[in-house]
Amino acid sequence: MLERDFEVEKVLELIEQKEFNELKRYLERINGADFPSIFEEIDEEDLIIVFRLLDKEKAAEIFAELDADMQERLINSFSDVELKNVVEKLFIDDTVDMIEEMPSNVVKRVLRAVSDEDRKIINEILNYPEDSAGSIMTTEFIDLKEDMTVAQAFDKIKKIGLTTETVYNCYVVNKNRKLLGVIDIKDLLVAERDQKVTELIDPDIIAVTTLDDREDVAKAFDKYDYVALPVVDKEERLVGIITVDDAIDVMIEETSEDFEKMAAISPNEDGYYKTTVVEHAKNRIFWLLFLMFSSIVTGAVITHYEQAFAALPLLVSFIPMIMGTGGNCGSQSSTLVIRGLAVDEIKSKDFLKVWWKEIRVAVIVGVIMAIVNGIRIFVQYHDIQLGIVVGLTLIVTIMLSKSIGCMLPLICKKLKLDPAIMAAPLISTILDTCSVLVFFNIAVAIMNI
Amino acid sequence: MLERDFEVEKVLELIEQKEFNELKRYLERINGADFPSIFEEIDEEDLIIVFRLLDKEKAAEIFAELDADMQERLINSFSDVELKNVVEKLFIDDTVDMIEEMPSNVVKRVLRAVSDEDRKIINEILNYPEDSAGSIMTTEFIDLKEDMTVAQAFDKIKKIGLTTETVYNCYVVNKNRKLLGVIDIKDLLVAERDQKVTELIDPDIIAVTTLDDREDVAKAFDKYDYVALPVVDKEERLVGIITVDDAIDVMIEETSEDFEKMAAISPNEDGYYKTTVVEHAKNRIFWLLFLMFSSIVTGAVITHYEQAFAALPLLVSFIPMIMGTGGNCGSQSSTLVIRGLAVDEIKSKDFLKVWWKEIRVAVIVGVIMAIVNGIRIFVQYHDIQLGIVVGLTLIVTIMLSKSIGCMLPLICKKLKLDPAIMAAPLISTILDTCSVLVFFNIAVAIMNI
Repeated sequence: MLERDFEVEKVLELIEQKEFNELKRYLERINGADFPSIFEEIDEEDLIIVFRLLDKEKAAEIFAELDADMQERLINSFSDVELKNVVEKLFIDDTVDMIEEMPSNVVKRVLRAVSDEDRKIINEILNYPEDSAGSIMTTEFIDLKEDMTVAQAFDKIKKIGLTTETVYNCYVVNKNRKLLGVIDIKDLLVAERDQKVTELIDPDIIAVTTLDDREDVAKAFDKYDYVALPVVDKEERLVGIITVDDAIDVMIEETSEDFEKMAAISPNEDGYYKTTVVEHAKNRIFWLLFLMFSSIVTGAVITHYEQAFAALPLLVSFIPMIMGTGGNCGSQSSTLVIRGLAVDEIKSKDFLKVWWKEIRVAVIVGVIMAIVNGIRIFVQYHDIQLGIVVGLTLIVTIMLSKSIGCMLPLICKKLKLDPAIMAAPLISTILDTCSVLVFFNIAVAIMNI
Repeated sequence: MLERDFEVEKVLELIEQKEFNELKRYLERINGADFPSIFEEIDEEDLIIVFRLLDKEKAAEIFAELDADMQERLINSFSDVELKNVVEKLFIDDTVDMIEEMPSNVVKRVLRAVSDEDRKIINEILNYPEDSAGSIMTTEFIDLKEDMTVAQAFDKIKKIGLTTETVYNCYVVNKNRKLLGVIDIKDLLVAERDQKVTELIDPDIIAVTTLDDREDVAKAFDKYDYVALPVVDKEERLVGIITVDDAIDVMIEETSEDFEKMAAISPNEDGYYKTTVVEHAKNRIFWLLFLMFSSIVTGAVITHYEQAFAALPLLVSFIPMIMGTGGNCGSQSSTLVIRGLAVDEIKSKDFLKVWWKEIRVAVIVGVIMAIVNGIRIFVQYHDIQLGIVVGLTLIVTIMLSKSIGCMLPLICKKLKLDPAIMAAPLISTILDTCSVLVFFNIAVAIMNI
């Protein structure tokens, strides 16, 4: 990676020595995305000094990258004029992101600092449901009228280009602001200056609506490879755009949520360190309690077969291996199905297709596990009957685990629940009971105990 | 979502009726990314007919979207001229992707169809290590000479724009092709025509080198929000670019790999359906066998305490709950740490910071679990001593589980191993042994059995 080297120590030193001119030059060479890591090291009172050295564009760019805590601290140090300068340069979607995290007194100051028109737009965006396309869109984009020529389009871009988030795609609308089509800047650049913009429109429009789920929006970016997608309202009027960087943020957030759900943690938008110890405990205790009560059922099943393991205590020592194998097989299948559903490779109607695949995998895996274990038991205990019991148990358990493991996420999807909750912890706990039942039933039947 | 509606049935019907003119018009309105799902439904012999109806640009665009099987089938139906037409229009990175999946006879035909110059570039890209930035870059981009004016830059874009993958970012190089800087097309569009391009260069360059890991490249896209990143060689000469759509593909692939590793499956690049049953079995059996042998250790520990549970068989019924809770607590912590490491929020040096957080969470969670269980046991069995044994076991097990769960991924990272292997299955198996040991030791000590 070829990044401009910078040293936080150097910045601190220049602050210390009050070498502000040199500091200003030094800061200009650093990418905006690297500033949060610098700001973390700077004392609160020096933060505003550093910020005042930056030119307005860069200051706004950096401000958008900071986390909510630091934004709040800075706003509290800003004069009203400074706040206005920063907020004016921010893109609307970044302003909205910021407002969502601020306490109400700060929100009031921010809303006083923006223009009347922006305030109206911000309030509209804030009204969209939390996970909707509308809530992550921006309203600053290049819109072209249907009767414009290429030359007129370039004039418009030259005039408003710097205040829009992207010029890579331009959007052609009619008088009623209905979206007619999208033009890639590449097609505008290779066209003749007197061509009509409508001639350059791509015949297929991919647009999202304000109420679409932001996760579906992120998937559309992956599928169609655009750098921005237009957002339209119910009347197909263009109201905003979503850029690919915001879609990437959504992907990463949604993936983190999936990971958390799959580890039996209630999902949480803050990062690991931002979440307090008490919140961490709260996010984890629900599933732990729920799973604990489920595993009490397994315990009760074991108690039911007290006679069997009283007759042959060695049986108990196989419980962890059988429960573990069942759980692992089930979570292998459920993870593959959950991921397949998340990336749209598996559809919820594929029920039989997936099950038929899993059951064949289960037979292969089950037979291998049974043979390996049979041999191990025969060598260790010279007991063929025990080897057969454990081997048979493994085959049946693995077939059962893989079936349940692949079906439960599909059923969840059908019921419009999140399939991710059917991951390792819940699947394992369900399968624990099944495995123990299979084991003792086979043992009692074959060994007559 | 506002997508152009299309019906596969309509396409099939038009093929059936040999209405090729109407079919051509119908196909033109469909987005390239939607074609794979249409092609899946079409008979092999009709595939080439549909393909021949598309104009050259669109045909190449669609060809790049197809999976390897379908590409191979099409190539086998192509005449040499048709193959040449498609390959000429493909971007270099898509050609390379295709070649990597084809059998050698097809690769030879493809390489015969490309120009001498392209063949040389393709061979160079094929030589980069599989997971490197070089292997996913494309070599078609807008490079500007350092002495060019804005007007000259536009002339160049107009000339070569359509053959490059993106015009959103342009790259300024000196005589020796050393990368001097990047210009966003927006800055070019708002600049005056007689300005020098060097005046517009962004002072901070973010570039990747050919040998950088593609996962780090994807992270750079998330951090810096660019739509393309330049790729330079050891001498800082510009050799290619990587576009954001390829970075998104890498993110999704790497995430799928993490999910697989975390479910004890050997990662696999093909999708769920593409992977055969035998391959699925192979990907899963290694970890199952490994974990099975580990859980035999837990079994042996239990056998060691045969006397204890012979004296009080009820003890056995608590084993699933205690093992389950230990495993779940451990995998909660390990998942959060693995994800934190993946998104760079947690660094491997944060050892103590993470542990101190986890241990406090463990105390809260442990005490709650102990109290709930203690009450349950007292109500069910009227046995205070047993309640204390189980409660104490839970507190100790949870503290141990959360400590081990957060430390093992961090240790893996330190040792340059993939932290994802330290997920639920392995962590649970390790913790099973620990939980059982804690339980029986506490039981023996308190109950004197």
